[in-house]
Amino acid sequence: MGSTSDLPVMEKAAQFLNEMEIPFEMNALSAHRTPAEVETFAKGAKEKGIKVIIAAAGMAAHLPGVIASMTTVPVIGVPINASLDGLDALLAIVQMPPGIPVATVGINGALNAAILALQMIATGDDSAQEKLKEYKESLKNKITKANRELASLTYKYKTN
Amino acid sequence: MGSTSDLPVMEKAAQFLNEMEIPFEMNALSAHRTPAEVETFAKGAKEKGIKVIIAAAGMAAHLPGVIASMTTVPVIGVPINASLDGLDALLAIVQMPPGIPVATVGINGALNAAILALQMIATGDDSAQEKLKEYKESLKNKITKANRELASLTYKYKTN
Amino acid sequence: MGSTSDLPVMEKAAQFLNEMEIPFEMNALSAHRTPAEVETFAKGAKEKGIKVIIAAAGMAAHLPGVIASMTTVPVIGVPINASLDGLDALLAIVQMPPGIPVATVGINGALNAAILALQMIATGDDSAQEKLKEYKESLKNKITKANRELASLTYKYKTN
Amino acid sequence: MGSTSDLPVMEKAAQFLNEMEIPFEMNALSAHRTPAEVETFAKGAKEKGIKVIIAAAGMAAHLPGVIASMTTVPVIGVPINASLDGLDALLAIVQMPPGIPVATVGINGALNAAILALQMIATGDDSAQEKLKEYKESLKNKITKANRELASLTYKYKTN
Amino acid sequence: MGSTSDLPVMEKAAQFLNEMEIPFEMNALSAHRTPAEVETFAKGAKEKGIKVIIAAAGMAAHLPGVIASMTTVPVIGVPINASLDGLDALLAIVQMPPGIPVATVGINGALNAAILALQMIATGDDSAQEKLKEYKESLKNKITKANRELASLTYKYKTN
Amino acid sequence: MGSTSDLPVMEKAAQFLNEMEIPFEMNALSAHRTPAEVETFAKGAKEKGIKVIIAAAGMAAHLPGVIASMTTVPVIGVPINASLDGLDALLAIVQMPPGIPVATVGINGALNAAILALQMIATGDDSAQEKLKEYKESLKNKITKANRELASLTYKYKTN
Amino acid sequence: MGSTSDLPVMEKAAQFLNEMEIPFEMNALSAHRTPAEVETFAKGAKEKGIKVIIAAAGMAAHLPGVIASMTTVPVIGVPINASLDGLDALLAIVQMPPGIPVATVGINGALNAAILALQMIATGDDSAQEKLKEYKESLKNKITKANRELASLTYKYKTN
Amino acid sequence: MGSTSDLPVMEKAAQFLNEMEIPFEMNALSAHRTPAEVETFAKGAKEKGIKVIIAAAGMAAHLPGVIASMTTVPVIGVPINASLDGLDALLAIVQMPPGIPVATVGINGALNAAILALQMIATGDDSAQEKLKEYKESLKNKITKANRELASLTYKYKTN
Repeated sequence: MGSTSDLPVMEKAAQFLNEMEIPFEMNALSAHRTPAEVETFAKGAKEKGIKVIIAAAGMAAHLPGVIASMTTVPVIGVPINASLDGLDALLAIVQMPPGIPVATVGINGALNAAILALQMIATGDDSAQEKLKEYKESLKNKITKANRELASLTYKYKTN
Repeated sequence: MGSTSDLPVMEKAAQFLNEMEIPFEMNALSAHRTPAEVETFAKGAKEKGIKVIIAAAGMAAHLPGVIASMTTVPVIGVPINASLDGLDALLAIVQMPPGIPVATVGINGALNAAILALQMIATGDDSAQEKLKEYKESLKNKITKANRELASLTYKYKTN
Repeated sequence: MGSTSDLPVMEKAAQFLNEMEIPFEMNALSAHRTPAEVETFAKGAKEKGIKVIIAAAGMAAHLPGVIASMTTVPVIGVPINASLDGLDALLAIVQMPPGIPVATVGINGALNAAILALQMIATGDDSAQEKLKEYKESLKNKITKANRELASLTYKYKTN
Repeated sequence: MGSTSDLPVMEKAAQFLNEMEIPFEMNALSAHRTPAEVETFAKGAKEKGIKVIIAAAGMAAHLPGVIASMTTVPVIGVPINASLDGLDALLAIVQMPPGIPVATVGINGALNAAILALQMIATGDDSAQEKLKEYKESLKNKITKANRELASLTYKYKTN
Repeated sequence: MGSTSDLPVMEKAAQFLNEMEIPFEMNALSAHRTPAEVETFAKGAKEKGIKVIIAAAGMAAHLPGVIASMTTVPVIGVPINASLDGLDALLAIVQMPPGIPVATVGINGALNAAILALQMIATGDDSAQEKLKEYKESLKNKITKANRELASLTYKYKTN
Repeated sequence: MGSTSDLPVMEKAAQFLNEMEIPFEMNALSAHRTPAEVETFAKGAKEKGIKVIIAAAGMAAHLPGVIASMTTVPVIGVPINASLDGLDALLAIVQMPPGIPVATVGINGALNAAILALQMIATGDDSAQEKLKEYKESLKNKITKANRELASLTYKYKTN
Repeated sequence: MGSTSDLPVMEKAAQFLNEMEIPFEMNALSAHRTPAEVETFAKGAKEKGIKVIIAAAGMAAHLPGVIASMTTVPVIGVPINASLDGLDALLAIVQMPPGIPVATVGINGALNAAILALQMIATGDDSAQEKLKEYKESLKNKITKANRELASLTYKYKTN
Repeated sequence: MGSTSDLPVMEKAAQFLNEMEIPFEMNALSAHRTPAEVETFAKGAKEKGIKVIIAAAGMAAHLPGVIASMTTVPVIGVPINASLDGLDALLAIVQMPPGIPVATVGINGALNAAILALQMIATGDDSAQEKLKEYKESLKNKITKANRELASLTYKYKTN
């Protein structure tokens, strides 16, 4: 991420990876303030065994694209809502030119970035596959609980 | 893809995968017109050995998200410009709710979708890794050629 | 609806239907988290005697369109403002491809969805027709009251 | 519709209704140029046995909302793309205030308007129901044909 | 205006007209809830000696256009920010079809609507002209005061 | 207007004024290229007997606002579609700060600007009033003609 | 700037210039309320030794463009977020017609405007160059600090 | 620029600089395809005597920002309209984070970029100042010519 102001959004990714027991590292890097550090990180990622990179940025969000230009490791971009409801960051991340994709998730979509990272890893890793299946099952719980809450509402003409 | 009208955009993905010698299949599926076929495809994908799914759709683009809701295989979404410059499709694909990510590329970004698919596969496959490196190298050629063209332009005050 | 976080918006629909003495049921269903339950609901709706379905969703709002793809019962879509002022949900609901319409109301327009449902039912039901006429009459009251309030304002050059 | 310049879009609605053997009338009415005629039409619609009204308009599209304010017959609004890619018409139709809904379909979505009209009628009419089921079945054909076309494409690494 | 919820915005127009000693009336009218009252008002305006009409509305803002369709008195439209930052109301008011203009001011621009009304009246009224000149002069005061405030700021390298 | 490239749009205003026998002058003025000429024009307008000014501009459209800042004559702004579908010009014209209104019409709305100008003049001029009434009547003709065209369409299930 | 309400945004520019020991003056000027004062300022700027002008404005932001039309001194425009998230001001500043550029920075980007001013001055001033280098170095500190904070977070599966 | 497809837009900058006798070089560089070459160029620019850099890019336009992160030379960004009417490129260039400004001009605004470059150079160079003054004078010619054309139009009620 580009600054610790993104932490409240991005810690959802950390929590998910931790829960799924996927080793990860967290770094503050800025495409604009520390381009040299970004380069070192991006070019060394593959070597260090990093399988997927999640990069979050707001405004004229360059971090995901800059990293993607320097590595073959897939980069997931998280547009941060820092201005214009996050639309500027979304467009600055997703509209990459032919040749250098960034796998973009929704605005402030840190959790989805982490899930997507696990899905990528799972293409070549069966244990990750199992974790995903369980997680996907668990998504139903929220809906089940919501249905219980709706069931408890009483209107004269409500039939369920 | 949802219709053969998307083919002029999506064949760039097919060409790239073919060039990279990555086996792939192509299907017309519509989240709205053939929901049962979409379900069969999505639920059977993992079993059939499919590692990544690329789904293209325009307008209120539901195909990528609907597939993503039914499989743990990572889904790459390609927003097709069929109305509103493709902004409707982009938002309808990228703004997925927590729990079910779609890896979104730019509007009409079929080539990037295919490259991203290869990057995902390469997280667990060293030969795919090699192909990516070579491809990334080749991206420079277009710029080299462009520079040659710019060098041939003659203005009195142009110094290179 | 997709979650109980939509309840503060959607209960206006429930209240209207209750007041109009139209039997209704309320369910939490998610196109992305519980696709199987959505399918069961959508495919069984006609049989159960459901005449109109109101589906609310935010962000990349797929619920209305997914239900519409699986039933001939008319589906009314309510875009929920969960991000981007609700513009993403509006476009993801209204811009359906040819063949599968969703009757879209305004952002957070739960009350209008319920009125529209009653209007649809009233195309084949005279008692519903009577209720609508009365309701339409009652809309004037708010304006009458507003005029009373404006009449009470006193400016030297105000002439009414 | 507001002018015959909308005819190329709106005739898809006429063709669908004709094919489905649903009696319909076509009128040019303008909320701005002929408000009196709009009023006569809207207030007389119920009496004449009209079950659903489809109103198309572009730019600051007022026709659907103005008609809806004067009748209890459900009004389907079709935003016409006459400027700003149709976004102005979409917002001017869909964002109706509480109390007077317009069932909005996508930009230039005349066919969907007609299908939705049939769905509304079918809430109280079993023969209309049958027509809808058949139509829904027929939507698969386009996808089947598309799949045949995709099957005929030959790439060395294409596996289907 | 369409409801007393617009009063906090619109009272700036009332205050200006009162200050300028321009007689005015204030009414709550809704193009959607009380179309008959709108018609009575619009058609009777000229007769009653009304020279300019200011109409405020939010969302799918139809009031200014509906009034403009029924009178030759110039109509000034004030888009109210009730959703989408007021962009829906702005487009629904300003994008009128050829033949029926609405003189649109900025979002929530009630004061400007009143000034514009005075400018219109002043095209045929010299005393109104005098009031406008004085008002225009007074606009400088705010800037003069701002400059005094800026002058009081002390930075070492500030030179004025 | 700012350039003769706006002439194809703006000549509709000239034609209307000519038809209505309203004397007018046409000038090319640019807020950015000829600010001194704009100032001379704006400050001299009242004196010369000009009752209303129509100013057209595209992109960061400053001409209407700059003129409005220098005269008490009402200024009608016409946003020209020169980029971004004219949305930039619309916002740059309509969103004027408190104190200096511009009466904005729709994008490329030259005809409406001329009609609005006549409506402004008619607030203090009865003969202009008569012309407006006749013009308003004539608007129905286009709809009458459209209805004739629709009446000539024959579909088996069309009932009018 | 156009009003002291812009001061909370613009004082970041003042602070930066002060810190860098660059002499500057601050003025309240309004393209709309005090056009004569703007003209005096713009036309006298070069003479007074002003090297760069920073102009901030919101809504239909004309100040930067109006100044730019009257001087050859480069003008930096700062769009102020006063409505529509600042998008109106951004477009009204950046979309200048050919011939009169405004160097636009991001919405509320006062600090960047001051840095850019220093960069412009540094094109012909070596001491300014030195200040910029130091400042650029200092940007890393924020990231270094952020990394320390991230390092202090402890998750079981976090590896750095 | 990022590719020779930008040449039709960017050659207006080259022509202006050539006409003004300002030495310049032209390069094709891509933030995404040739990051190493971009770095070499940006870091060596100051040394080579480059005073201003003009960088054009479309879509998720990173080139101007990436260069700006690596040099203290001022960078002018030109958003190229390659998708979404150029709005994506505009936001991706102008919305830079605090610390690293890019002087952004309008969409496809190559000529303005070159003029702005000259204005920057002229802050420390009197001969450049002279050229600018002459150029600014010449801008009036286009308007003078337009006025001649308008004067030649004959309408009965046109008075100039």
